[in-house]
Amino acid sequence: MDFSSLDPLISPRSFALIGASDDATRIGGRPIAYMKERGFKGAIYPVNPKRATVQGLPAYPDVASLPAVPDVAVVAVPGEAAIEAIDALGQKGCKAAIVFTAGFAEVDEAGAAAQDRLVATAKKHGMRLLGPNCLGLFNDSIGFYPTFTASFDSGWPVPGGRIGIASQSGAYGTHLFSLARDRGIGANIVVTTGNEGEVALGDVLGWMAQSPDIDVICAYAEGIRESEKFLAALRLARANRKPIVMMKVGRSELGGAAAQSHTASIAGDDAITDAVLQEFGVVRARNTEELLDIAYAATKCIYPAENTLGVMTVSGGAGVLISDAADAVGFPMPAMPQAAQDKLRSLISFCAPRNPVDCTAQAINQIEMVGEFTRSMAVDGGYSSCLIFFSQVGGSRSVAPKIRGQLKAVMEEHPDRLWALSIIAPPDMVREYEADGFLVFEDPTRAVTALHALGRFGQSFAKAEAVAGLLPKVTLPAQTPTEAEGKRLLAAAGVPAVPERGCAEVEAAVAAAKEFGFPVVLKILSPDILHKSEIGGVLLDIDSEAAVREGFATLLARAAERAPGARIEGVLVAKQIKGAVEMALGMVRDPVFGPVAMVGLGGIFIEVLKDVTFRRCPFDAAAAEEMIRSLKGFPLLDGVRGRKKADVKALAEALANLSTFAAAAGPQLVSIDINPLLVLPEGEGAYAADAVLEIGA
Amino acid sequence: MDFSSLDPLISPRSFALIGASDDATRIGGRPIAYMKERGFKGAIYPVNPKRATVQGLPAYPDVASLPAVPDVAVVAVPGEAAIEAIDALGQKGCKAAIVFTAGFAEVDEAGAAAQDRLVATAKKHGMRLLGPNCLGLFNDSIGFYPTFTASFDSGWPVPGGRIGIASQSGAYGTHLFSLARDRGIGANIVVTTGNEGEVALGDVLGWMAQSPDIDVICAYAEGIRESEKFLAALRLARANRKPIVMMKVGRSELGGAAAQSHTASIAGDDAITDAVLQEFGVVRARNTEELLDIAYAATKCIYPAENTLGVMTVSGGAGVLISDAADAVGFPMPAMPQAAQDKLRSLISFCAPRNPVDCTAQAINQIEMVGEFTRSMAVDGGYSSCLIFFSQVGGSRSVAPKIRGQLKAVMEEHPDRLWALSIIAPPDMVREYEADGFLVFEDPTRAVTALHALGRFGQSFAKAEAVAGLLPKVTLPAQTPTEAEGKRLLAAAGVPAVPERGCAEVEAAVAAAKEFGFPVVLKILSPDILHKSEIGGVLLDIDSEAAVREGFATLLARAAERAPGARIEGVLVAKQIKGAVEMALGMVRDPVFGPVAMVGLGGIFIEVLKDVTFRRCPFDAAAAEEMIRSLKGFPLLDGVRGRKKADVKALAEALANLSTFAAAAGPQLVSIDINPLLVLPEGEGAYAADAVLEIGA
Repeated sequence: MDFSSLDPLISPRSFALIGASDDATRIGGRPIAYMKERGFKGAIYPVNPKRATVQGLPAYPDVASLPAVPDVAVVAVPGEAAIEAIDALGQKGCKAAIVFTAGFAEVDEAGAAAQDRLVATAKKHGMRLLGPNCLGLFNDSIGFYPTFTASFDSGWPVPGGRIGIASQSGAYGTHLFSLARDRGIGANIVVTTGNEGEVALGDVLGWMAQSPDIDVICAYAEGIRESEKFLAALRLARANRKPIVMMKVGRSELGGAAAQSHTASIAGDDAITDAVLQEFGVVRARNTEELLDIAYAATKCIYPAENTLGVMTVSGGAGVLISDAADAVGFPMPAMPQAAQDKLRSLISFCAPRNPVDCTAQAINQIEMVGEFTRSMAVDGGYSSCLIFFSQVGGSRSVAPKIRGQLKAVMEEHPDRLWALSIIAPPDMVREYEADGFLVFEDPTRAVTALHALGRFGQSFAKAEAVAGLLPKVTLPAQTPTEAEGKRLLAAAGVPAVPERGCAEVEAAVAAAKEFGFPVVLKILSPDILHKSEIGGVLLDIDSEAAVREGFATLLARAAERAPGARIEGVLVAKQIKGAVEMALGMVRDPVFGPVAMVGLGGIFIEVLKDVTFRRCPFDAAAAEEMIRSLKGFPLLDGVRGRKKADVKALAEALANLSTFAAAAGPQLVSIDINPLLVLPEGEGAYAADAVLEIGA
Repeated sequence: MDFSSLDPLISPRSFALIGASDDATRIGGRPIAYMKERGFKGAIYPVNPKRATVQGLPAYPDVASLPAVPDVAVVAVPGEAAIEAIDALGQKGCKAAIVFTAGFAEVDEAGAAAQDRLVATAKKHGMRLLGPNCLGLFNDSIGFYPTFTASFDSGWPVPGGRIGIASQSGAYGTHLFSLARDRGIGANIVVTTGNEGEVALGDVLGWMAQSPDIDVICAYAEGIRESEKFLAALRLARANRKPIVMMKVGRSELGGAAAQSHTASIAGDDAITDAVLQEFGVVRARNTEELLDIAYAATKCIYPAENTLGVMTVSGGAGVLISDAADAVGFPMPAMPQAAQDKLRSLISFCAPRNPVDCTAQAINQIEMVGEFTRSMAVDGGYSSCLIFFSQVGGSRSVAPKIRGQLKAVMEEHPDRLWALSIIAPPDMVREYEADGFLVFEDPTRAVTALHALGRFGQSFAKAEAVAGLLPKVTLPAQTPTEAEGKRLLAAAGVPAVPERGCAEVEAAVAAAKEFGFPVVLKILSPDILHKSEIGGVLLDIDSEAAVREGFATLLARAAERAPGARIEGVLVAKQIKGAVEMALGMVRDPVFGPVAMVGLGGIFIEVLKDVTFRRCPFDAAAAEEMIRSLKGFPLLDGVRGRKKADVKALAEALANLSTFAAAAGPQLVSIDINPLLVLPEGEGAYAADAVLEIGA
C-alpha cells in the first residue's frame, strides 16, 4: 500500500488558510506566524473576506479567488462554513485539508451528522482530510506549521531530529513533543488526527514509514478505527526497518463487540490490539517516559536481533539493581568468558569480572582501566548492548573528561554496538557524551528497558514475513451447527476431535482401536442402558488387539447377564484420553481486525488468571507455537515437575489449522469455542472434546 | 527498642579524624574540608603524627594526645592500624567510629578475620562502629560531613530537607542523594553502612525513625543481615508515622537457607523480605525514580488511609492514560456525584464531568472555570488526592500565573488533600508551584504511583498493631514424626486433618458419622483386602444415620460374599470431602526472620505460577485472611464462575493456628508442609489431607 496521497497534507509546496487572522496569537493566525518564523518555502495564501493583507501577506476574499491551487488548506472557520470551504477547495482542485474546527462527532448526534457531510464532501472531490477537531500538524523539515498548539512558546523542535509523532490526541501529542524537546530529543514531524473523520492513525503511520525524513515513529492511540491501512502501515514500517513505539491507552476498559463472545470477553479487545502490535514488532510503552526513552535509543538505528547486555559498573549495588531490571524484562546478560575474567582480575584484583563487571573505584584511580575493561566487554564479551554505570563520577568536571576519552576510543572501535551511560551530569556534559555517540540515562533501569526494546525491534525486522498460503475453500452450514456437525467441520479443517466409533462387530472394533491407537475405552452400546458403569459396561486401558476381542466378549456377556432384555447395538470404541492437558482454543471476530484466534490453558487459567493469547488469523504452526509458549501456564505443557511433555506440535497445528479455517470461512463465522481441547503426551496428538461454532446471518 | 546509641555517630558534638590529611581532595582530607565549609559547630580533632596542623586546625600525633574525648572518630588508616586506632579510641572513652578503610570481609577470608577482630575490639569498648569499607555519612542539619564522597562537587543538599537516606551501598546511596538534590528534593541525612560489621541497616532506620530532623526515610538494601533491630526499626517508624520507601535489590536471585525447604524454594527468600516489608507498610520501589517520586510526595506528610483519586485534565487522552495507570495500581477513582456532574456540565457544556473530569481547553479561555472545576472536585468529589493535568499550558508564561492563582485558592481551602500537577514547565515555574504547596510531575503516571503510595502508608499507619497473645506451650517430638503423629500435633494446635475412624461396631460408626457430619464415606476395614473397590468395599455419599447402618451391613455382607476368609476388623468412617479447593500451607525457618508461614493454592498455582504469600509467625486470623485474599488465585475460593464459596474463615484460622504453633515451637521446628489442605464450602471447614513436620537437631 502506498501512502503518498498524504504528501500534499504533510509535505506540501503551497498552503491556504481559510479563516486567516492578522493576530498571530489566534487560532487562525498562529499557522502563518509559525511558518514565517520557521521559513516555509512554499506559497502561503491567507483567505479572509474582510482584509487585504494578513500578517503582511496578500489575503484573498475566498477560495475561488486564490491565484493557484494550494496543495493543502487549513480550515479554521466554524460549523457549516467549514463544509462549504471544503467544497470550494475541492472545486478548486485542492487535494488535502486540515480541519481545526470542533463541534462535530465529539459533541453529539447532530455533530456526527455534520461530520459525515464534511467527510462526504471531501471524498467527493478526492481530498484527504485531517480532523476535524484536530490540533493540526507540523513538519519542521520544510518549516510547515499548520497547527495552533502553544507548544512553541517554550521552544522549537531540536534541529536534526528524525522522530515522527502520530497522535490521536492533540493535547497528548504536543505534550509528548514538548517533553522530547526539553530532553533534547528531536521530533521533526508531529501529526494529530483528532476525530479521524477521514485520515486515521494508520495513514499517518504509513506515510511516516515511507518518509525519508523519519527514522523512528512514536504513536499515541486511544482506539484503532481501521484495520487495512493500519496493518499495511505496520507492515511497511517493519519492512523499512522503522521502529514504532506506541502508547495505546484504554487498557483497563473491556468492551466492544468482541465482548459479545464469551471467550474473548475474558480478556477484552485491548488484548487483541496488543496481539496485533506484537505481531508486527511494535513495542508498546507503559508510559510516556518509557516511550521517549525507547524512541531516543532507537535514533541510533542499531537493532540487534540477538541482543545481549553487558554491564560495567563502579558500584556493586547498581550492578545488582541492573541485573534485576534485565531479569524482569528477559534481557540476557551472559557471563564474560573465563579467560577474560582472569585477565580482568589480573588487572584489578578486587574487581568482579563476571557480568555485571564491577571495575570498582580503582578504575578511577587508574583511568586506563576504564578503557581496558570496556574493551574486554566489547571484544571478549561480545555484547550487543553495553551499559556503563558511573553515577556522579561520570559528571565530575575533573574525572569525566578522562573517562570520556577512554570510553570514546573503545566505542569508535565498535560502532555496531549500543553504548549507554548511566551518569548524573550537568546538561552540557550530557550533550558532549551524546555528541560522542553515547546514549545517556540517569536511571540505569530505564536504560535497560530502552536497550532491550531495540533488540525486540531487531527480532521483528529479522523475521521474514511469513508468506500466507492460499486459503482453502470452506463451506459453512447456513446456521449454527450441532456440536457433532461442528466437530466434523473442524476435523475436516485439521482440528481433530476425540475419535470414537460404534462397532456392531468385533472385527470393526479391532479395526477402530488400531486406527485410533491404543489404549482405547470400550463401552457397551445400548439405548436401554443409561448407567453403563453400574453393569460393568465400561472397560478402560484396553491396550491390545487381543484385549479388544476379550473386552468385546466380556461386555456382551455382562449385558446379557446384568441387563437382560436390553437392546444391544454393539460396542463403542473410543480413544482413551489419559494424562491430557486441557486447553481452550477459540476464534472471535474483532470489529476492527477481523478473525482473531485465541489459545489458553483450560479451567482456572482462563477463568481466574485470564492467561490467554491472541493472534490475527491466519497464521502458521510456528506462530501458533510462539503463542502457546508465551502463556504463563506453558510449563504445564512442558513437563514441569515431572509431568510428561505434552504434544505441543499437535496443539500448534490444531491452532494454526483453526486460524486458517477461520480466515477462509468469511464473515458468517462469528466464533469458535473449543473447550476443552485435550493435549496428550508428546507424539500422541491433541483432540477437541467439546466445540461450538457460531454462524451469523 | 531505643536507637539513641547512634546519636554520637550521626549527631555528635565533637569529631576526630584518624589519618587526617592536609589535602582537601584526599580521603583523609575531605571530611574536614566539608565540615569547615558547612559550619560544623563541634570540635574537630585531626590526628596525624607527621603534622602540627591539618587544613589550618591543630593536629594531634595520636588518639591518646587528644585534649578531650571525641563523640565520634573517623578511621581512615589502612589495615591493622585501623584496628589499633579503634582500640586506642575505645581506651580513650570514645563511643562511636566510622571506618572508611577497605580490605576486610569484602575481599577474602583473611579480610573477614581482620573484620572480626575490628568489630570485637569496638564491642569490647562498647563502641558503635559504622563500616568498615563504607563511604561514611553526613548530617546536614548540623554540618557534620564524615564522608569522602565526591557528590558535593556538584552541589550541597537542598536546604530544609527532611528526608533520610540509609544505604548499604555507598555508591548507590550517594547516587540517590545526587539525583534527589538535582530534582530539588532535600535529603539532609545520608548514612551508608558498607560491610555492616557492627552497625547495620536496621540501626540506621531505627535512628532515623526517632530523629526529629527526618520525616521520610529512603532505604537501599541488598540483603537484610539482622532481624530484631530491623523489625524494631520498621515498627518504630510506623508508630511515628514515618514512611519508609525501600529499594531491595537481588529480586532475581533465589537462595539462602530457605531454599532448602521445598516449599519456600518455590518463591525464594526475596518473597519473605517482601512479606516483612509489607507487614510493616514499607513501600518497595521498583526503581530509583519511583523511590524518589514517592519520597518527594511523602514530604507533604499527608497519608490518607482512605485514598481516592480525582483527576482534572485538559486532555481526554491524558485522562484515559491516567485511568489506566490508576487501575494498574488499584487506586480507586470514584465518579463525581451526579448533581456535581450536572453542575459542571452547566458550566462547560462539552466537558466530561465524571472522573477524570475533562474541563477541555474552554477552561483556559474562561480561567475562573479552573477554580470552579477544581473546587467541585475537592468539595463534591471529596477526593483525598487530586491530580491536575495541564501539560505545557501549566508552564506557559502567559496563562500559567492565572491558572496558578485559581488552583492555589482552592488548595488553601483544602490543605488536607494531596495536590499534584502534571505540567511541563521551566524549573523556576516548577519551584513556584512547589512553593505554593503543589507536587509537580511531568509524567502523570508517575504522579499516580506516588500518590497511591501515600495511601498505602496511611493504611499502614492506621492499622493498630495487633497485640500478640501469649504463645501456647508446644512440646515437639525429638525427631521428625510420622505423618499420622504430625497430623495429630497439628490437629491439637488447631489445624484439623480429615477426620476418620475405624469402627468395629455399627453404633461406633453411627457416632463417628454424626461427629464428622454427613456425608461420610464407609470403607471395609481389613488387612487382607487391598483393593476395596473391587469387591464393592467403598460406599460414598452416606448421608444419614440409617444409611450408615445399612451401609455397615452391606459392606460386611459383600466382604463375606466376595472375599471369604478375609479378616474383617470393621468399617472405616471418614468425612467425605467433596468439592474442596486444594491449598498448600507451610512454614519455613528463615535464617533472618525466623518462622515464616506460607499459603498458596495447590497444584499448578504453586508449582507453575509461584502464587504464594508469606508472613512472619505468629499472626491472627484477620492477617491470615488478608494473605489468602492477596493470592492471584483467590477467586477460586471466592465462588468464581458459579463455584461455591469456600470456607475461607476456616482456612484463615488453620493458617493463623499454624503460625502460632510455629512461633511457639521454637527453633527445633524446621518446616511444616501441608499439601493439600482441603477447603470445603463455606461453613464446612478446612482439613489437612497430607502433612509433614520436619524436626531439626
